[in-house]
Amino acid sequence: MPDEFRAATGSSGASDGTGHGARPAPGEDPFAWTVRARRARQRAGLVRELRPRPAGSPLLDLAGNDYLSLARHPEVTGAAAAAAQTWGAGSTGSRLVTGSTSLHAELEAELAEFCGFEAALVFSSGYAANLAAITALTAPGSLLVSDAGNHASLIDGCRLSRAETHVVPHADPEAVHKVLDGHGGQALAVTDSVFSVDGDAAPLTALVEVCRAQGAALVVDDAHGLGVLGEGGRGAPHAAGLAGATGTVATVTLSKSLGSQGGAVLGPAHVIGHLVDTARTFIFDTGLAPAAAGAALAALRVVRREPERSHRVRAAAILLHERLTEAGLRAGRPDAAVISVRAPAPEDAVRWAAECRAAGLQVGCFRPPSVPDGISRLRLTAHADLSEEQLEWAARTIAGTAPAGAR
Amino acid sequence: MPDEFRAATGSSGASDGTGHGARPAPGEDPFAWTVRARRARQRAGLVRELRPRPAGSPLLDLAGNDYLSLARHPEVTGAAAAAAQTWGAGSTGSRLVTGSTSLHAELEAELAEFCGFEAALVFSSGYAANLAAITALTAPGSLLVSDAGNHASLIDGCRLSRAETHVVPHADPEAVHKVLDGHGGQALAVTDSVFSVDGDAAPLTALVEVCRAQGAALVVDDAHGLGVLGEGGRGAPHAAGLAGATGTVATVTLSKSLGSQGGAVLGPAHVIGHLVDTARTFIFDTGLAPAAAGAALAALRVVRREPERSHRVRAAAILLHERLTEAGLRAGRPDAAVISVRAPAPEDAVRWAAECRAAGLQVGCFRPPSVPDGISRLRLTAHADLSEEQLEWAARTIAGTAPAGAR
Repeated sequence: MPDEFRAATGSSGASDGTGHGARPAPGEDPFAWTVRARRARQRAGLVRELRPRPAGSPLLDLAGNDYLSLARHPEVTGAAAAAAQTWGAGSTGSRLVTGSTSLHAELEAELAEFCGFEAALVFSSGYAANLAAITALTAPGSLLVSDAGNHASLIDGCRLSRAETHVVPHADPEAVHKVLDGHGGQALAVTDSVFSVDGDAAPLTALVEVCRAQGAALVVDDAHGLGVLGEGGRGAPHAAGLAGATGTVATVTLSKSLGSQGGAVLGPAHVIGHLVDTARTFIFDTGLAPAAAGAALAALRVVRREPERSHRVRAAAILLHERLTEAGLRAGRPDAAVISVRAPAPEDAVRWAAECRAAGLQVGCFRPPSVPDGISRLRLTAHADLSEEQLEWAARTIAGTAPAGAR
Repeated sequence: MPDEFRAATGSSGASDGTGHGARPAPGEDPFAWTVRARRARQRAGLVRELRPRPAGSPLLDLAGNDYLSLARHPEVTGAAAAAAQTWGAGSTGSRLVTGSTSLHAELEAELAEFCGFEAALVFSSGYAANLAAITALTAPGSLLVSDAGNHASLIDGCRLSRAETHVVPHADPEAVHKVLDGHGGQALAVTDSVFSVDGDAAPLTALVEVCRAQGAALVVDDAHGLGVLGEGGRGAPHAAGLAGATGTVATVTLSKSLGSQGGAVLGPAHVIGHLVDTARTFIFDTGLAPAAAGAALAALRVVRREPERSHRVRAAAILLHERLTEAGLRAGRPDAAVISVRAPAPEDAVRWAAECRAAGLQVGCFRPPSVPDGISRLRLTAHADLSEEQLEWAARTIAGTAPAGAR
C-alpha cells in the first residue's frame, strides 16, 4: 500500500503511539494497550462518547442523515411494522439461501428504475455495498483510483481489493487522468458524489469523460446524493446523465434520504449478476431485515410522489449556509444537504457541539480520524421538514456559541 | 499475504481465468469481462441465482439460520413493529452522531449480561462486528492466527487489518501454539466457535490455554453458538468458561438465533470503549435500525424465559444426523444446529437441492467459493420448532433424492 494512501486514510489502533507491539507476559491482560491508547486519545481530545437518545428527543436535529424527514413518516414506519409482521423480524439467511424475499426484489426493481439504472442489489448497509462493488469489480493487477476525500467504506473497499490503489487529490479529474494514463490494466475510478464531511459535490461530468477516454469504469457512491440531487431526488448520477451508462456503477444507502437501513449497488444487469455470484459481503452476510426493506420501499414511493422534498432540503441547506457565513463562520457552500463549519481544534469542536446541545440543537462534531484533512468541524445537515424559523434559530444558536478562532 | 491464505480463502473476480487484466478500448464496456467470467462460472457449475421467497412459503425450512424459530415469533415481530413506530424506521445516523437510541443501549446491556461479558457493542451486521473486532484490536507488526475454516467476515477482517496473518490448519491448537511461539509481537487468535459450513465446534478450551500461555488474545465468532450452545443458549464462550475472561472477545449475530438483523462484539469494557473510539465499521456505518434492535431484544428475553429452545434445536440436529447417516449419507456430526452433507460435485449439489425443493423441502446448497475445502455440500439447519414428524420426513426426502456418489 502506498504511503500517501496510509496517510490520507488514517488508521485505527495502529499509530496511537502507545507502543503496544510487544507481547504481554502470560497472565497479563493482552488488551492492556487499549487502556494506554485511550489515555493518549484523551490527551489529544479524541475520545468519543456514546450518547443514547430518547424516543422523543427535545433537540432540534441538525446532525442526522434523515435528509427528507422520512424516518418518522407514518407511511414509512407503518411499512416497516407491516413488513416485520408479514415477513418476520429477520430475513433468516444470506440472500442466496433464505434471505431474499419478494419484498427485496420489489425494492430492487423500483430503486433501479427510479435512479435510472438497469438493475440493483440490496445489502445490509451502504458499507457492505461499497466493499462489494470495489472488491468484486477489481482483480489483482487492476488499478483503483480513489479520491482523497472518499468515505471510509470506499477506502476499506480499496484496502480489501487486490488491485493497486492510487489515491488522487480531492476532486481532481486531471490527476485521475494522469494515473489512468500511466497504467495499462483494467481500471476503476472511485468517488463519492457528495463528500460526507464537507458536503461538496464531485466533478462527475469531468470524471466520467476522463474514465471514458481511458476505457476505465467509474463507481460513484451516491449515499448523500440520492433523494437530494437530480430530478425529484433521483441522485447525482442521474443529474449528471450517468445513470444507466455503460461502465458506470452507483452505490446508495437506504439509511439517509430513505430513512431506513441498508445499501444498494446500481448498475448494468451483468455487473449486478457478477456481484450476486462473487461479492463476499453479499454472499456471506444475512439479507437485509424485511422491516428495513419495506420502509425503504415506502420511502421511495413518498419521494416519487413528493419531488418537492428534494427542493426543500436543498433550499434549507443554502439558507443555513448563508446565515452562517453572514455571521463570519467558515462554512463550505453546500452542494447537497451537508454543511461543514470549521473549528479551531478538536476540543473546541466538542465544546461548541456541547453548547449547541445545551441550547437545544443537535449538531455533528467530526474530529480525526473521521476527517480527511485532520481539521475538526461541526457537521450540519439540512432536512426537508425544517421550517424557516427553525433554520434561522439554528444558525443564530451556532453563531452565538462559536468559539474564538472559529471566524 | 501468504499464498496459502489466498488459496484457502478463494477469491471473487480475481482468478476467474478470463484474463480481464487488459484495459478495454475507449467506447467498449469496461465491465465486459464480467460476462466472460460468468460464462466460465457457468461451465464450472458455479452460477448463483436469487430466488425471492413469498411471505408464506410452502416449503419446510432446513436452510435458514433462524435456529430457535424466533424470526416469526409474535413477541419478536411485535417488538420490531413497535420499535419502528416509536423510534422511526431508521436510526438516522452513525452510532456516534444520532444513531444510538436507548433501545440500543438496553440491548447491549442485556446481551452482555446474558452472555456473561462486561460490555457489548451492536453493529448493523455480524460481518461489520467481525471487521471491527479484528481491525481495531490489531496493528501493524501484530500477529493474527486464523483458522483455515473461518467465516469470510473473519478472513476479510484479517485482510483489512495491518497485522501479519497466519492461517493455521482447521481446529488445530498445536498449530496455533507453533505460530505464536515463533513471533514476539502482540497477537490475536481468531476462530469461529461453530464453523458455518460443517457445523463442527472449535476446540475453545485448548485454544484459550494456548493463547494464555503465550500472552495472546482470542476472538471467538459465536454466530452459530449463541442461542444454541451453553446453559440456556448463552453461547460457546460461556459453555467453555471463557465469557468475561481477560483477553477474550466474542462476536455474535442478531440475525440467527435472535431472528433479527445485526451483530455485536462482547468483551471487557475497555476493549469495547476502544472499538467505540477506533473501529471504522462502527464509526462510519449507520446505526442498526430500531426495529432490528427491538426484535433482537425481545428475542433475547424469549430465550431467557424458554431455555428449552436451545435443547430442542440441538436434539433436532442430532436426530437429523442420525437418520441421514443411517441412510448411508456422509453427514458430519453436528456440534450445534448445522449439519453438512457431502455431494459429489457442484452440479450434483444444485440438482439435489432442487429435487428437495420440488418435494417441499428447502435446504442450503454450498459450493465454491463458499466452502473452505472446495467440496460442495447440502447445508441443513435444525430449528427449535420442527416436530419429530417433520424431521423424519425431511431426512427421508434428502435420502430419497440423493445423487449417485453421495453415499
